Amino acid sequence: MAAQKALSGKDVATHNTRESCWIIVHGNVYDVTDFLDEHPGGSKIILKYAGKDATAEYDPIHPPDAITTNLPKEKHLGPVEPDTVEKVEVVITDEEKARLERVENRPPLDEILNLHDFEAIARQVMRDKAWAYYSSAADDEITNRENHAAYHRIWFRPKILVDVTKVDWSTTILGQRSTMPVYITATALGKLGHPDGELNLTRAAAKHGVIQMIPTLASCSFDEIVDAAQPGQVQWLQLYVNKDRAITKRIVQHAEKRGIKGLFITVDAPQLGRREKDMRMKFTDEDPSEVSKSGSDGVDRSQGAARAISSFIDPGLKWADLDWFKTITRMPLILKGVQRWEDALKAYDLGLAGVVLSNHGGRQLDFARSGIEVLVEVVAKLKEKRGISFPNEKFQLFVDGGVRRATDVIKAVALGATAVGIGRPFLYAFSSYGQEGVEKALQILHDEFEMNMRLIGAETIKDITPDMVDCSNIGSHIAAIPEDRLYDANYETLQHAKLREIKSKL
Amino acid sequence: MAAQKALSGKDVATHNTRESCWIIVHGNVYDVTDFLDEHPGGSKIILKYAGKDATAEYDPIHPPDAITTNLPKEKHLGPVEPDTVEKVEVVITDEEKARLERVENRPPLDEILNLHDFEAIARQVMRDKAWAYYSSAADDEITNRENHAAYHRIWFRPKILVDVTKVDWSTTILGQRSTMPVYITATALGKLGHPDGELNLTRAAAKHGVIQMIPTLASCSFDEIVDAAQPGQVQWLQLYVNKDRAITKRIVQHAEKRGIKGLFITVDAPQLGRREKDMRMKFTDEDPSEVSKSGSDGVDRSQGAARAISSFIDPGLKWADLDWFKTITRMPLILKGVQRWEDALKAYDLGLAGVVLSNHGGRQLDFARSGIEVLVEVVAKLKEKRGISFPNEKFQLFVDGGVRRATDVIKAVALGATAVGIGRPFLYAFSSYGQEGVEKALQILHDEFEMNMRLIGAETIKDITPDMVDCSNIGSHIAAIPEDRLYDANYETLQHAKLREIKSKL
Amino acid sequence: MAAQKALSGKDVATHNTRESCWIIVHGNVYDVTDFLDEHPGGSKIILKYAGKDATAEYDPIHPPDAITTNLPKEKHLGPVEPDTVEKVEVVITDEEKARLERVENRPPLDEILNLHDFEAIARQVMRDKAWAYYSSAADDEITNRENHAAYHRIWFRPKILVDVTKVDWSTTILGQRSTMPVYITATALGKLGHPDGELNLTRAAAKHGVIQMIPTLASCSFDEIVDAAQPGQVQWLQLYVNKDRAITKRIVQHAEKRGIKGLFITVDAPQLGRREKDMRMKFTDEDPSEVSKSGSDGVDRSQGAARAISSFIDPGLKWADLDWFKTITRMPLILKGVQRWEDALKAYDLGLAGVVLSNHGGRQLDFARSGIEVLVEVVAKLKEKRGISFPNEKFQLFVDGGVRRATDVIKAVALGATAVGIGRPFLYAFSSYGQEGVEKALQILHDEFEMNMRLIGAETIKDITPDMVDCSNIGSHIAAIPEDRLYDANYETLQHAKLREIKSKL
Amino acid sequence: MAAQKALSGKDVATHNTRESCWIIVHGNVYDVTDFLDEHPGGSKIILKYAGKDATAEYDPIHPPDAITTNLPKEKHLGPVEPDTVEKVEVVITDEEKARLERVENRPPLDEILNLHDFEAIARQVMRDKAWAYYSSAADDEITNRENHAAYHRIWFRPKILVDVTKVDWSTTILGQRSTMPVYITATALGKLGHPDGELNLTRAAAKHGVIQMIPTLASCSFDEIVDAAQPGQVQWLQLYVNKDRAITKRIVQHAEKRGIKGLFITVDAPQLGRREKDMRMKFTDEDPSEVSKSGSDGVDRSQGAARAISSFIDPGLKWADLDWFKTITRMPLILKGVQRWEDALKAYDLGLAGVVLSNHGGRQLDFARSGIEVLVEVVAKLKEKRGISFPNEKFQLFVDGGVRRATDVIKAVALGATAVGIGRPFLYAFSSYGQEGVEKALQILHDEFEMNMRLIGAETIKDITPDMVDCSNIGSHIAAIPEDRLYDANYETLQHAKLREIKSKL
Repeated sequence: MAAQKALSGKDVATHNTRESCWIIVHGNVYDVTDFLDEHPGGSKIILKYAGKDATAEYDPIHPPDAITTNLPKEKHLGPVEPDTVEKVEVVITDEEKARLERVENRPPLDEILNLHDFEAIARQVMRDKAWAYYSSAADDEITNRENHAAYHRIWFRPKILVDVTKVDWSTTILGQRSTMPVYITATALGKLGHPDGELNLTRAAAKHGVIQMIPTLASCSFDEIVDAAQPGQVQWLQLYVNKDRAITKRIVQHAEKRGIKGLFITVDAPQLGRREKDMRMKFTDEDPSEVSKSGSDGVDRSQGAARAISSFIDPGLKWADLDWFKTITRMPLILKGVQRWEDALKAYDLGLAGVVLSNHGGRQLDFARSGIEVLVEVVAKLKEKRGISFPNEKFQLFVDGGVRRATDVIKAVALGATAVGIGRPFLYAFSSYGQEGVEKALQILHDEFEMNMRLIGAETIKDITPDMVDCSNIGSHIAAIPEDRLYDANYETLQHAKLREIKSKL
Repeated sequence: MAAQKALSGKDVATHNTRESCWIIVHGNVYDVTDFLDEHPGGSKIILKYAGKDATAEYDPIHPPDAITTNLPKEKHLGPVEPDTVEKVEVVITDEEKARLERVENRPPLDEILNLHDFEAIARQVMRDKAWAYYSSAADDEITNRENHAAYHRIWFRPKILVDVTKVDWSTTILGQRSTMPVYITATALGKLGHPDGELNLTRAAAKHGVIQMIPTLASCSFDEIVDAAQPGQVQWLQLYVNKDRAITKRIVQHAEKRGIKGLFITVDAPQLGRREKDMRMKFTDEDPSEVSKSGSDGVDRSQGAARAISSFIDPGLKWADLDWFKTITRMPLILKGVQRWEDALKAYDLGLAGVVLSNHGGRQLDFARSGIEVLVEVVAKLKEKRGISFPNEKFQLFVDGGVRRATDVIKAVALGATAVGIGRPFLYAFSSYGQEGVEKALQILHDEFEMNMRLIGAETIKDITPDMVDCSNIGSHIAAIPEDRLYDANYETLQHAKLREIKSKL
Repeated sequence: MAAQKALSGKDVATHNTRESCWIIVHGNVYDVTDFLDEHPGGSKIILKYAGKDATAEYDPIHPPDAITTNLPKEKHLGPVEPDTVEKVEVVITDEEKARLERVENRPPLDEILNLHDFEAIARQVMRDKAWAYYSSAADDEITNRENHAAYHRIWFRPKILVDVTKVDWSTTILGQRSTMPVYITATALGKLGHPDGELNLTRAAAKHGVIQMIPTLASCSFDEIVDAAQPGQVQWLQLYVNKDRAITKRIVQHAEKRGIKGLFITVDAPQLGRREKDMRMKFTDEDPSEVSKSGSDGVDRSQGAARAISSFIDPGLKWADLDWFKTITRMPLILKGVQRWEDALKAYDLGLAGVVLSNHGGRQLDFARSGIEVLVEVVAKLKEKRGISFPNEKFQLFVDGGVRRATDVIKAVALGATAVGIGRPFLYAFSSYGQEGVEKALQILHDEFEMNMRLIGAETIKDITPDMVDCSNIGSHIAAIPEDRLYDANYETLQHAKLREIKSKL
Repeated sequence: MAAQKALSGKDVATHNTRESCWIIVHGNVYDVTDFLDEHPGGSKIILKYAGKDATAEYDPIHPPDAITTNLPKEKHLGPVEPDTVEKVEVVITDEEKARLERVENRPPLDEILNLHDFEAIARQVMRDKAWAYYSSAADDEITNRENHAAYHRIWFRPKILVDVTKVDWSTTILGQRSTMPVYITATALGKLGHPDGELNLTRAAAKHGVIQMIPTLASCSFDEIVDAAQPGQVQWLQLYVNKDRAITKRIVQHAEKRGIKGLFITVDAPQLGRREKDMRMKFTDEDPSEVSKSGSDGVDRSQGAARAISSFIDPGLKWADLDWFKTITRMPLILKGVQRWEDALKAYDLGLAGVVLSNHGGRQLDFARSGIEVLVEVVAKLKEKRGISFPNEKFQLFVDGGVRRATDVIKAVALGATAVGIGRPFLYAFSSYGQEGVEKALQILHDEFEMNMRLIGAETIKDITPDMVDCSNIGSHIAAIPEDRLYDANYETLQHAKLREIKSKL
């Protein structure tokens, strides 16, 4: 990519039609005319910026190199003369004004008492599209909610009269210290929620001594995120394996060189899931004529942001490929997205460092079981088949999905997990309060750990043992019989005693 | 039926009373005076057309030959002179106007993301009576909803690291190729939803390479439906067995001659069910005086559309009759509506080609179990009793009822089904969008299959194995204990952190 | 009680104070001054009629002989001269006017499609107190609703290809023919719902050939009810055993002489239950000063109508007393209210004719199990302990509580019951439509039986066998874990596709 | 603490700033300047009373000696001259006015039919902060509600034909007679609900012959409560063990000297739980500037009333300490808060008098199991391990949490409990009606016992046996599968028959 003569903004501005459509991103001009119909987000949004600077719109929803990767090199037209580019006037809609007012009225962080609160605030202050992308999940979002619900089928058997004056919930994960058995798991497109994107996580993780897993599909570049780390701060890399293994090799070896301490290979996403909440959102500000056109030519453009950024992922990745990874890196290899004991056993037999029992936050296969349920199965079967017990230093089990409380984490630890990944709650934390939000979220977890370690009677993480939980209902997937609505409608609810006058409070 | 001299519309018009009531249907005159009190839809609706052309009203809710079959030949008065018939003026009510406006405002097909969406739109744009007929089910509609709910008690155990670059969900059903393990099952009275009725299904099935099961109670005639098929397109016939076996023989042999590839004998409907939603609808535009008269004479006219068209069905059909079917046709014989393993075993021992585990979409016996639940029982018992396993080419298991997602189908296939029948969703698809709706519905299923084959780690239908699902809760028919409403009303729900001002979004 | 000189209405009218309070009932004068504070319905309602004719108020909520039984003979002051009694002017409140308007607007009986409908109408057209008395149940009314819910945990395994041209659901109960395996069970105070009270049931039972169980606490006298029966019509007697056995003996022997065919001794009500819905009602039109007075003197007057009429019941009734019953009557003896297999076994060993597995419609002990659940236990244990099977002519099992559909009855029959008692639905039927309502209710049951016998594949009652139901969940008393309201409030529900404009129908 | 010269109110009044802040409590002056930032309730509330008499605000939410204990002696400035103190003018807000009006409109006690009713009234008439403190529980309050729900999974198997003319539900607890198997368990800060605080309980307990457990954190002093007892009235002491064992020894020996009959050592609260409903309340009338300051300096002040008063509790209390207790007292020793059979067994082996199976009313560890569930486990395991059965005089089992009905108590007794503790319902009773409320609550329980002893067929407490309950579902912690909201939204609910006109009642 030799130096090119800069183009004039005025020239660019003339390419503002479907027939010839140029856009500017980060000071470079791209000819996207032929790409219009391939753009997973639809052509309309590009045409809105035809001949103009699209950077502000582009940034939050694309990894930094999305355009350079997806567009053939001959369409990279080179830099634009900065001063010649017309400013894009940003029209603030009434809706956006109302949102900004809500941002202004966020409660102070003191009033955030738990991780749920961040989500409640984020839902109010995030842009609709960002909220839809973060919160959406696969199909009917059953697995998404089951991830949380499964923890509710596990109950505690706390010990009493244990000296818990000092309690210590720090632990060691893949050989690295962590102040708690929790890590920040990888989630895509951090800038959708906050201009600093994933850096919010990096900085907060440093302050609280937890490990961050850097996502392949981050909004910030990998190096930005690594650069933001403090000396000695531990980071991992989540990897989507590219069809082009050379690219994957480059990424992995670069990561190792930069000090990454673990490679989490995503195995539950040969294709990124359909997330209808996200897809539905897309239609709200589409031009109907555009839509019907798209409908009539049979091209499917309705897959939301996720599909847009994931076409490089290799659906052909298979067990046999894992040996290759061992040849290119010495980082611990962990499979992320294992969902049955048979596959955990294979990973163990292959000598990998561990597995994450996960269904991708419910965003991939609906009716996949929760990680915590799979954990119970994996621990039982690996004991039966290989005689090993957990937690286990040689082969570590991780779980993610649906975690909102330190008690959830403690349940997972009691059942054999080394650590638990938390994703969306941190996204919601920085989407509403930036880095401070993530710090507060981590602080809340620390507070909850301190409290609950005492209350279950465990001084250290090692004292959290399987007999401290009753998980006998973990496999109960019960749906109540459909209601008898005629009977129920006839039933007159009992009433409490009432105040004499109707000036009741509620 | 020799040629008769055509009657004059004016003459017909004079027979417009309860004492002498003639009507015109498809250009022929019928004396229905004596039939008024037998008409399952009530006499009022006929009297409204006394002396007039009733074709437009008649068509959508009767099979083409209903009137000629039900009325004695001497009441067939012969053709009318077309030009002499007064046009029936159609009054468009405000309600109908509002409905038509809703039809106008349907979202474009692009915005339909799943099969649920068709139902949501159909409910808005269909005529109330049509909606009531399609959507209604038996008694308290418990089985109807359980059919869907049962799938929610089955969860996936997906495999990872399988090369799913290419996935293929086509299959072979009764020796015929199908692009997916799904067929369009038989449902009655297609013209209630769309003027083209069942032809919408035939045409869309052709485009997408799936099999259509033609219903006995179609609004279009059998030959119309077969004629609409493409060369090589596979169709089956659903059969209600007539009390008059000669008629049944004629139908079956005609079907075989026309190339029908499978005969599905309905065995769960010796009498068509009471569907109260449908019955309730009937009263909304009744003349009260008529109703009370009908009430006082003890004649039960309240059975809705279903009963009207089904009086010919033989409640005496029994196992011994099946041998006779083998003598009249060489089509594969399948029993539709098997609901216990003992009967599946009998069918197997009789050498039939298969059974459909079905409860007629919940429209017959309330509290019949779902087909998917019965499937688990049948597979286990036939293995135990006869040592066979499924899917099985010689004796194929089908399931219908409650299916809305490709994941539902995949669950059934994993548990041993050869294919799954889908009914109502296609009705809703053409009721809201005609043939294009059905095509879109099939396309959605294809998309979901592609996605979910990858996500469970199956390259082909054969790779979908029983270990990929956990169905241990399939038999759990749980009703939660009645709520303690006094306790619950006292419980004050926890609140999230709130915005400072009350300008919250939701 | 020798003939007494009739009192003058004017004299009676002067005893209209708390200090001297006389009332007229059915033409006789009673001095109730000393009884005021004992009246279970409170003193206020009596004082309202002090010196006046209280018959109209008295009738619906007392058995005919309540006043003569409860008041010492010296307070029976003898007859009043009819013409001298001032008419009580009945003030029709606005509320009552609205109710009468609702009565006027009842839908015609044709529109009643199931037993639920009667309850829906009755709730609209009954007086509040009557509704409260009929519908109320014990404590939190959990058992009341569980009675119905338990049937929903039983599912059918219907047979196909059975010749069901003719189906017959008549049966023999305690040696008597019944057109269906259903009887009208005993319920108190029929005149609360309709001026003809229990006679509505007698007359309708005659028309439809079912057996009526006459309640001890009927509003009509026993002889009135027996007199209303047709020749050959079968009736039973429900018996509350009096502390004074002589009275009980008189009642029983009178009943036998009048042709009663079975004696059902209530054993689940040594004391009538607290029914708070009924008690709550009482306060709505109390004089607050009266109430606080009553509160301050520590007398408990808050037990509603039930307690008022039941003080004679003997809480000392015990197993040893049953031999005595055998000495005073040859009618079949059945215990009504058995709730555990151990007691059913005792009844069997004592040579009784049967037991009713019942919890008194949920009106006695809350958290008693449903009769249908106890049935499963009883059948299993009596087979185990005594080797007998059910249905059994020598020792018959009955069930009542929560039945609304013929399918419920069929489930009970499949599990071993000879017949099923239905109570409240018939009360609601005559409360909304008098005798015709009860006839319609029975007709609906007949229609449902015909349909469902065909659909499960049973020609006669004997063909309804245990393998036709799956009751493996009958003992599941599951309460869902309390909801996670913070999590749930954050979850944003998926939305369907929407019409373009907001003119949606719903 | 030698006599000091009284200070002048005027002098005190000058210390009314953050820089120098004095307050008057119970006639004594305290310099709280340095304590402002440590005050668990925040500094703002103190500053409001800077230089003034804070007694009225202080009293309900602090144990009497809180200030003397927490403040160094040099900050105790001595008495104030009473007449010189300016009266604090109490401003009655509109909200408070509305509340007082609601107090005025409480229904008469006659209309209170059950324990639920007290809670319904209390919620209307209590101050918000008091309600929040009493009603709140840990985290998502799952355990709090499960405590009640667990009783709903236990069902009765009542006996019939038992002579229940006389029923007696009195019992013996730790060697002392009680009129029922219920005691008033310890709850903190009684003056929040009523100015007489815990004395309401003492007096009502005397009248009804039940035992009161005196809380360490009472609003009234221990001696006040003991002084209020009648001669012979039995009281127990609940003990939070102080880090300073000398204090604990003093308290225990003083209690024994005053006649306390049982020492209940709390073992489930090494640290008092986070109760977010209580914490949330705190923010409603905070000065935002104060809050954000507090937020910025990293001091956590958000722990609500509970933490404020509990910092003395020793989290180091351990099994080994129990021997020491035996050396300082001869009172029976009972552990309050046992939550697993292993710990109950240890207590038994140590020769203690019993254990309370409790999770502190759901206020400590969320997802701790209910006491009633643990009871089933403890009884089974102690029988298995030590061959003992329950109820057992030597080692008594108690349960608390979630009890609202006598039937709940009867279930616990049937399963082996000696008695059941009830807490919040009595708080709500006196918060709405003072001592009379508590008496009424006890009377309701007596009435329910009389009724239900008869209805289950038990003459005495000893006749309540394990076979009278079915607790086979006690361990079922089921969460329904997340709903399929698209499917459910499409389902059109069945409708009842309707009145002709829309003048329906409801």
